[in-house]
Amino acid sequence: MNTKPLRASVSRHAHFNAAHRLYVKTWTDAQNEAQFGPCSNPRYHGHNYELIVKLTGPIDPVTGYVYDLGTLSSLIKREVEARLDHRNLNEEVPEFFDRVPSAEFIAVAIWKWLRPHLPVHLDLHITLYETPRNFVEYDGAQ
Amino acid sequence: MNTKPLRASVSRHAHFNAAHRLYVKTWTDAQNEAQFGPCSNPRYHGHNYELIVKLTGPIDPVTGYVYDLGTLSSLIKREVEARLDHRNLNEEVPEFFDRVPSAEFIAVAIWKWLRPHLPVHLDLHITLYETPRNFVEYDGAQ
Amino acid sequence: MNTKPLRASVSRHAHFNAAHRLYVKTWTDAQNEAQFGPCSNPRYHGHNYELIVKLTGPIDPVTGYVYDLGTLSSLIKREVEARLDHRNLNEEVPEFFDRVPSAEFIAVAIWKWLRPHLPVHLDLHITLYETPRNFVEYDGAQ
Amino acid sequence: MNTKPLRASVSRHAHFNAAHRLYVKTWTDAQNEAQFGPCSNPRYHGHNYELIVKLTGPIDPVTGYVYDLGTLSSLIKREVEARLDHRNLNEEVPEFFDRVPSAEFIAVAIWKWLRPHLPVHLDLHITLYETPRNFVEYDGAQ
Amino acid sequence: MNTKPLRASVSRHAHFNAAHRLYVKTWTDAQNEAQFGPCSNPRYHGHNYELIVKLTGPIDPVTGYVYDLGTLSSLIKREVEARLDHRNLNEEVPEFFDRVPSAEFIAVAIWKWLRPHLPVHLDLHITLYETPRNFVEYDGAQ
Amino acid sequence: MNTKPLRASVSRHAHFNAAHRLYVKTWTDAQNEAQFGPCSNPRYHGHNYELIVKLTGPIDPVTGYVYDLGTLSSLIKREVEARLDHRNLNEEVPEFFDRVPSAEFIAVAIWKWLRPHLPVHLDLHITLYETPRNFVEYDGAQ
Repeated sequence: MNTKPLRASVSRHAHFNAAHRLYVKTWTDAQNEAQFGPCSNPRYHGHNYELIVKLTGPIDPVTGYVYDLGTLSSLIKREVEARLDHRNLNEEVPEFFDRVPSAEFIAVAIWKWLRPHLPVHLDLHITLYETPRNFVEYDGAQ
Repeated sequence: MNTKPLRASVSRHAHFNAAHRLYVKTWTDAQNEAQFGPCSNPRYHGHNYELIVKLTGPIDPVTGYVYDLGTLSSLIKREVEARLDHRNLNEEVPEFFDRVPSAEFIAVAIWKWLRPHLPVHLDLHITLYETPRNFVEYDGAQ
Repeated sequence: MNTKPLRASVSRHAHFNAAHRLYVKTWTDAQNEAQFGPCSNPRYHGHNYELIVKLTGPIDPVTGYVYDLGTLSSLIKREVEARLDHRNLNEEVPEFFDRVPSAEFIAVAIWKWLRPHLPVHLDLHITLYETPRNFVEYDGAQ
Repeated sequence: MNTKPLRASVSRHAHFNAAHRLYVKTWTDAQNEAQFGPCSNPRYHGHNYELIVKLTGPIDPVTGYVYDLGTLSSLIKREVEARLDHRNLNEEVPEFFDRVPSAEFIAVAIWKWLRPHLPVHLDLHITLYETPRNFVEYDGAQ
Repeated sequence: MNTKPLRASVSRHAHFNAAHRLYVKTWTDAQNEAQFGPCSNPRYHGHNYELIVKLTGPIDPVTGYVYDLGTLSSLIKREVEARLDHRNLNEEVPEFFDRVPSAEFIAVAIWKWLRPHLPVHLDLHITLYETPRNFVEYDGAQ
Repeated sequence: MNTKPLRASVSRHAHFNAAHRLYVKTWTDAQNEAQFGPCSNPRYHGHNYELIVKLTGPIDPVTGYVYDLGTLSSLIKREVEARLDHRNLNEEVPEFFDRVPSAEFIAVAIWKWLRPHLPVHLDLHITLYETPRNFVEYDGAQ
């Protein structure tokens, strides 16, 4: 084994459920219906979101850890679940007062909430299942 | 093989997502919060519901079918998904205007919607996952 | 703990894949198409079948076993997988030369193959997933 | 709707991981190896156990609940996970000091731990996955 | 938030089932058997294929979408499922008249069918499960 | 189709179960408890590990294969499962006599065992689930 640390990824699942609707405030109802279909229902619908947070970086040669997954789990509870679980995303989460709570933008919000609390030398990648059949990924890229 | 038909079960998965809140209209907010916790959030939360409809009865000796699962799938779309998918259960589904939309009562409602459209000689059993970790079952029993 | 043995169930997953078509030999093509739709395609289609074999009976108080799942796994390999895996059910499996290879009848065949090799004091229950969304069950009932 | 309460089942998933070995103390190593194969490894092996606790009984007509799944989840944490999670079953769990920690007997132990804390009018059924491919069930039957 | 669009991926699950056999027309039966084993069975076998289509590109700042997953689902139905579902790949799908319908080449075919119908600024990545235990990926790379 | 081979990935699932504990030999018990919590239990705990081995490289234009998954499955059995399945990682696997058997280092060990037996032109990527909620990845990177 050489002395340069090996690089690996570690991932942790979490979950939350929430109500939302997809609509653009400045559009007419007809425009929203045309774009978002039943997802624009003004009385909301909801999902069980399944979240996977992945961190990539060097393996600590002593502990064998890239990052402690127990710590990561606590961080997700505090920064993500406390904000989103059992919430109405449009009405109760400031990030979506003026932004469509699409799965893409929810993933972006999660990335932004977690990023400042993680070591800078670790890459952060978010996977978010809106349903078991639809999911999105975001890693901070522009 | 004897001439008495063999008995088997056939099951079909379906899914829908919806918003709801759990609360009893005649209770105070504090009572609802005490009983239902964050599930009583007045601004709603939501789930991806996963539904399994099981029919039990004789196997037709010619077709090899207990019941055509394509027909069952269409029936579920018409009687269940059309009523519940992308809906607010409390505000848009009459069964829950005066009844808590708990997973148990949603399963009861689904059973009642499907039962009249299925042959009387088939038993009907409903399994409903509210989350991947919580599920209920109902088969018409009292 | 009293001396009467406790009763429990043990289950084992297995899997195989196969080609089949659903059709009744004595029917016309139009009748088969009307009954079975694309499942009657004369050139076959196929599935990954997922099988769950459940045995119910007394727990041996010394070994803690209802039945050895390693033994059950070997039995499934010999009696079920050897007959069905990578096979054309209509053309290569005698049970389906004159019988529709519906999921129901495949489950019945599996039950009949396994039953003679298992202790008579154990109940046998078959669950067979034809797809992740469709499954059947058979336990020998008439 | 008549006045007799409807009966339904509610289920909750939980999980824990543990080390164990399968062996009978009064047997020779050769006997244990013959009966349990690699599961009798004296240095232990381990599993992620997946637990499903099902309760069956009347639906409360006001709350729509058979039993509060949040309460059930807390009960499982206290009575089951606290005893089994991250444990060596043979050495640290008294129920298995003189009894093989087979999946069957673990399910029996879980049933016995939970039963006194649940209302007597509810039936209790335990499903325990030892691996994603092997599982057992116990409901108190003899 | 800066004005350069954020980049994310969106993915959609779909599925189809089909029969196939793996063999090279210009090889002898013995060569095919040696290379492909039971997968070369001349009477075919089959699978439930699970497909994941991933698109990567900028998030539309107004709709919050990389691409509409409802549109993607319809496109998959028309371009992929209509060609493959309930088919015999070797005999009914021209792409495999002279090419082994391995999972790899099925993924390549799916990529080629979808690519012309998707915006050029989106990257396309195909994941195809042939069984729950085997899967392939293709993204147009050479 | 041009003559340069297409590049794809093929993946195979496998699984094993094992006991382990996380601790650094040169640390005190208190240090280990502080770092690893219940995972440092001196009497061990265990997991069902789920392994995914991915190979990336050119598709053979004749066989349609990147690599034969049957061969890969046999290789995993011989090089990985034979070393790890039903083992105590700390006491029976030399790689972990002086190294923490964290999921990260188990993935590294698997990569090192498999790499010499695979063609050099194929990239190797390891995914290892320690539980259904925690997983790691390693591809040889430094």
